[in-house]
Amino acid sequence: MVLEKLKHIPDPTYVQAGPLTDFISSLFSGAGMPDEDARLCATVLVDADLNGIDTHGVCYNLDLHYLTGLLNGYINPTPNIQVTYETPGTAVIDADRGMAMMASVQAMELAIEKAKTTGIASVAVKNSSHYGAAGYYARLALKHDMIGFSMSSGGGRVIIPMNGRYPWMGTNPMAFAAPAGDEPPFVIDMASSMTSYGKVSIAQAFGVDIPEGWAQDANGNPVTDITRRSEAIGQPPLGGTHDRGAHKGTGIGIMADVLGGLLPGERLSGMMLDNPKGGRFCHYFQATRIDGFRPADEFKADMDEMLRAFRAQESAPGMPEVLYPGYPDAVYVNKRTETGIPLPRHTVNYFKEMADRLNVEFTIPG
Amino acid sequence: MVLEKLKHIPDPTYVQAGPLTDFISSLFSGAGMPDEDARLCATVLVDADLNGIDTHGVCYNLDLHYLTGLLNGYINPTPNIQVTYETPGTAVIDADRGMAMMASVQAMELAIEKAKTTGIASVAVKNSSHYGAAGYYARLALKHDMIGFSMSSGGGRVIIPMNGRYPWMGTNPMAFAAPAGDEPPFVIDMASSMTSYGKVSIAQAFGVDIPEGWAQDANGNPVTDITRRSEAIGQPPLGGTHDRGAHKGTGIGIMADVLGGLLPGERLSGMMLDNPKGGRFCHYFQATRIDGFRPADEFKADMDEMLRAFRAQESAPGMPEVLYPGYPDAVYVNKRTETGIPLPRHTVNYFKEMADRLNVEFTIPG
Repeated sequence: MVLEKLKHIPDPTYVQAGPLTDFISSLFSGAGMPDEDARLCATVLVDADLNGIDTHGVCYNLDLHYLTGLLNGYINPTPNIQVTYETPGTAVIDADRGMAMMASVQAMELAIEKAKTTGIASVAVKNSSHYGAAGYYARLALKHDMIGFSMSSGGGRVIIPMNGRYPWMGTNPMAFAAPAGDEPPFVIDMASSMTSYGKVSIAQAFGVDIPEGWAQDANGNPVTDITRRSEAIGQPPLGGTHDRGAHKGTGIGIMADVLGGLLPGERLSGMMLDNPKGGRFCHYFQATRIDGFRPADEFKADMDEMLRAFRAQESAPGMPEVLYPGYPDAVYVNKRTETGIPLPRHTVNYFKEMADRLNVEFTIPG
Repeated sequence: MVLEKLKHIPDPTYVQAGPLTDFISSLFSGAGMPDEDARLCATVLVDADLNGIDTHGVCYNLDLHYLTGLLNGYINPTPNIQVTYETPGTAVIDADRGMAMMASVQAMELAIEKAKTTGIASVAVKNSSHYGAAGYYARLALKHDMIGFSMSSGGGRVIIPMNGRYPWMGTNPMAFAAPAGDEPPFVIDMASSMTSYGKVSIAQAFGVDIPEGWAQDANGNPVTDITRRSEAIGQPPLGGTHDRGAHKGTGIGIMADVLGGLLPGERLSGMMLDNPKGGRFCHYFQATRIDGFRPADEFKADMDEMLRAFRAQESAPGMPEVLYPGYPDAVYVNKRTETGIPLPRHTVNYFKEMADRLNVEFTIPG
């Protein structure tokens, strides 16, 4: 199992979530962001690491998106975030090219506030950047006894639609979170490809070959030998081939482009990428009150019963235990709260380089 | 491509949508349903055939679900459908064990009505039966310049969750429809498996071997030789294996169980199937006003531009043209409106048998 291999970081440096958040926060402040915004962005990223979502934490996207974008002027460090349109259950927010986390948290909180009155509400964000792990925003609904949902579109062209030759859209993710009582919540947080493109970067960093379907060359052939990564121009959608459901992965990706792109008034990711610095991102957030349907306590008790029964299923011969999406995340949170977050060598080196460049104290050990 | 092969019905009988709807409607009336309800059910099924969704039209599920259920008393021919709970933007409908189409159309229309005030609204249906193609209901939103969404959970245990040995849930589908201007609308209508289980039945009826991932035996091994179909106990989720995203297909299936099952107060499909006659179904419907975000005309013009650009993409060498989900459906509607709907021999035989049994005039030619 390649996914398992990618979890084994060679020679890691362990850092507790608190000090890691402080350090990342200081990098963002050093890049010109107000302290409060810098801390929110750091919190969202470290939360992904705590949940075991290594692709969307502090290790890859500071370089690929955030710090690089702030320093080259593509991301606005001091955005004027505004609600530009509103009805009782819907709204549009303009993120003013800032770091996506502030506008995204504001959007999800606005959806939650509106849903208190209407039962369900949704807010779309335009003119934004990479928002990190989609699940963070969906999970914000849980403590309100609501169901959270989010999609994001845009960014670099990565996904090659079914039958297509070249990449057209981003790995447009979808997240859905529903609360339980004692069980960890049910959370899907998924790219519309077989795996996030970040996993290909991790595989390259660790020298691990990748499964068919994670990367494709310009002739429509799979790239699996990681030393040939430079020949990969993108990824097929979830499913991979038509017979195995590639039209479904393609459709989920376009759904994100519609909800988190065309709805707030942005162009589809595949059309807004003529900007040489990479495309903008836009997002969609939705909150649904459980007691818009029935008492939340009853719902959560039934969720517990269902999720426990799900976990109690017999495994196929030779397979690991049957877990629902969201459960492994909770196991990671427990484990990494204890051990700290494992950082690969290249990340520690990058942090040191950026701390020097931004005149920030380098507080990461090792 | 196996999916292509399954579209070639051997020795078909072509029947126009109008007379086919009349005949199917008379079968439902003959099984005890009021004429108006019978016609609605027939209309929903024939619409699936018109759209090329052969698995969810008149050819397979009359026997597997509808007529059989009506005649053995599992489906109530004269249900008392009631809204049992309501807020400004949400509601629950009890389908009273009737044919799902009446409650489902009522639910989607109620969501559309509510969304006119709140911007977005959702309605869940409990105590229902198989609702046919999910896309039918999502598409009801289009003429109101709204985005439609639907999921359904329940039915027979078919999907074997990632790592599991035995089936746990139904092929829990998701549908999403967004309007365009001149282009056919964007419509996803997808089971949370690689393909609907009905395709395995079609492959068996036509004697076509199936791809890996469409069926699995009790030892976790794929079944591809269609003569071994009896060894298949279910299907893996979309993705197939963990490395190829099976946790995503599993998660989409559970999402349907949450929205279209636990939310209106039903038990998860995997838990409600101790009934020897098969599980109940429940559903979720959602409507979103486009002008809750921006003027619908602008949105639809941008959709046209995006969908045309999508279709204009270059194909990978040797692959067919790049089409967005929903486009092939529109091509089918045009084609089958002209040629009529192709019925396989076994379907015509079944219709004749049921017409005799229900004292209904057999009006299908051939």
